[in-house]
Amino acid sequence: MAQVDVEIIEVSPRDGLQNEKALLATADKAELVNRALAAGLRRLEVTSFVNPKRVPQMADAEALMAKLERPENVGFIGLALNQRGVDRAITAGCNELNFVVVATETFNQRNQGVPVAETLSTWAAISEQARAAGLRISVTIGASFGCPFEGEVPASRVLQIVEALLAHPPDELAFADTIGCGVPTQVKTLLAGAAALAPDMRLRCHFHDTRGTGLANVAAAIDAGVHAIDASIGGIGGCPFAPNATGNVATENVVYMLERMGLRTGVNLDEVIAAAHWIAGPLGKPAASALSRARGFPPAA
Amino acid sequence: MAQVDVEIIEVSPRDGLQNEKALLATADKAELVNRALAAGLRRLEVTSFVNPKRVPQMADAEALMAKLERPENVGFIGLALNQRGVDRAITAGCNELNFVVVATETFNQRNQGVPVAETLSTWAAISEQARAAGLRISVTIGASFGCPFEGEVPASRVLQIVEALLAHPPDELAFADTIGCGVPTQVKTLLAGAAALAPDMRLRCHFHDTRGTGLANVAAAIDAGVHAIDASIGGIGGCPFAPNATGNVATENVVYMLERMGLRTGVNLDEVIAAAHWIAGPLGKPAASALSRARGFPPAA
Repeated sequence: MAQVDVEIIEVSPRDGLQNEKALLATADKAELVNRALAAGLRRLEVTSFVNPKRVPQMADAEALMAKLERPENVGFIGLALNQRGVDRAITAGCNELNFVVVATETFNQRNQGVPVAETLSTWAAISEQARAAGLRISVTIGASFGCPFEGEVPASRVLQIVEALLAHPPDELAFADTIGCGVPTQVKTLLAGAAALAPDMRLRCHFHDTRGTGLANVAAAIDAGVHAIDASIGGIGGCPFAPNATGNVATENVVYMLERMGLRTGVNLDEVIAAAHWIAGPLGKPAASALSRARGFPPAA
Repeated sequence: MAQVDVEIIEVSPRDGLQNEKALLATADKAELVNRALAAGLRRLEVTSFVNPKRVPQMADAEALMAKLERPENVGFIGLALNQRGVDRAITAGCNELNFVVVATETFNQRNQGVPVAETLSTWAAISEQARAAGLRISVTIGASFGCPFEGEVPASRVLQIVEALLAHPPDELAFADTIGCGVPTQVKTLLAGAAALAPDMRLRCHFHDTRGTGLANVAAAIDAGVHAIDASIGGIGGCPFAPNATGNVATENVVYMLERMGLRTGVNLDEVIAAAHWIAGPLGKPAASALSRARGFPPAA
């Protein structure tokens, strides 16, 4: 496998599609995954194992996993929030688990139906269950840079949750700007705090471009030493709390910026752009990311 | 006047409108300027004094200037590329001049019709003419981060032009990412070089968001010590070299990011967003900037 400086985790099949109105056919989701793999992406948040009544887009989690080939050295990440979800992810063949806790009580209650303390207890059980099954495990702390219900989220609050999680340390810890309100100074402050608490922990960031700061935050995270960035082909995903806003940072925008900064991602920009234009078909709306419209620079000879 | 940490120069009336298809009425341009002033913007690139046959949108330069009130402590910047243009700007009542030289021969030839050396000779004459008339003067170096005709533009090339300009030092020197291809590492490298050459020179940056890197470049420029950023209400402007791309960094996006980073801009975010929605009418297309769709954070109480 080629050496990379920054690992990009493709989250369009899960976080992207979950926030899109169009319900995609399982075959289209499999093609999205296969196009991401063909473009060189090596870790993918493929689906989530949650209640299909709450998240209809993810109702075909097992069917999608069954359709996928499993190349070597590829991480197929399943999101799960409880032990039943982890069982399903293991049975379906995921080799990585992503768990979520939200930094604020109100948002965690709405997202997981329980207080933060209960989610942290669940994490203790889940981490052991997933570890025993040989899965790589990561935790994403949602709303790390601001909450749609509670407003500002101090870094100290997020770091309290980091400390609690470290009782059962994951392989990787991610900070998510779930509603796309973060700015570079926040990113640097939070990551410095996390690195001080857990100097050996692998840190990942997840940004949304809701307010145009997505790539600024990526650059700040890289400056702060992060080696893994979540991104979504075509920037698909939107934001349920800002109905007209753009979604996750677009994989093609992230690849463009990082490669042009001299950082290797192992991802082929043109193939990602092609995938962004392709997925626009099933989604029934034009590709909206900057790179899908402007293309790279300098132009290919 | 309130203290500001970062000065935002509103360029929508000139660089923005010049790249929009819709020809605006002079009254609409005056309203755009007045809305920018009401929002707290204190330096505006109001118009350009160039050949109206080449740039029809700027044919009403004098008529627009005649319509505007002149509050104190406001910079009304006129762009001019030759001595006749400077004469017109002075007569029309501009108190600042912006001159442009492009970093590459091909682009300078297409933009100004002469080689770079001849543009630099013109600068020598113009700087004396404008200085004698008491105007504040600045120079923008176009295509400082990449050229649509020549591709990569090394920082050393841009710094050669800086050195040549310093024979007749302007009050401010700006680096423009005319086609929106730059990334933060380029910004930091170029600004460090410029600061070494001209430690006392006031530096400004002009970014386009063509490839999503606009705010990342703004953050990098601020990190590098720049105190002035060009921006355009609504991000209007587009890019003639990438027909579907977005334009200048949107004033509202820049204000949002900087203020949330704790930097004072003196600009009212909600009034800028309102102006972005208003100008969408005369332009005949919806406001496209992130902030005009998502609004600020945290939401006003």
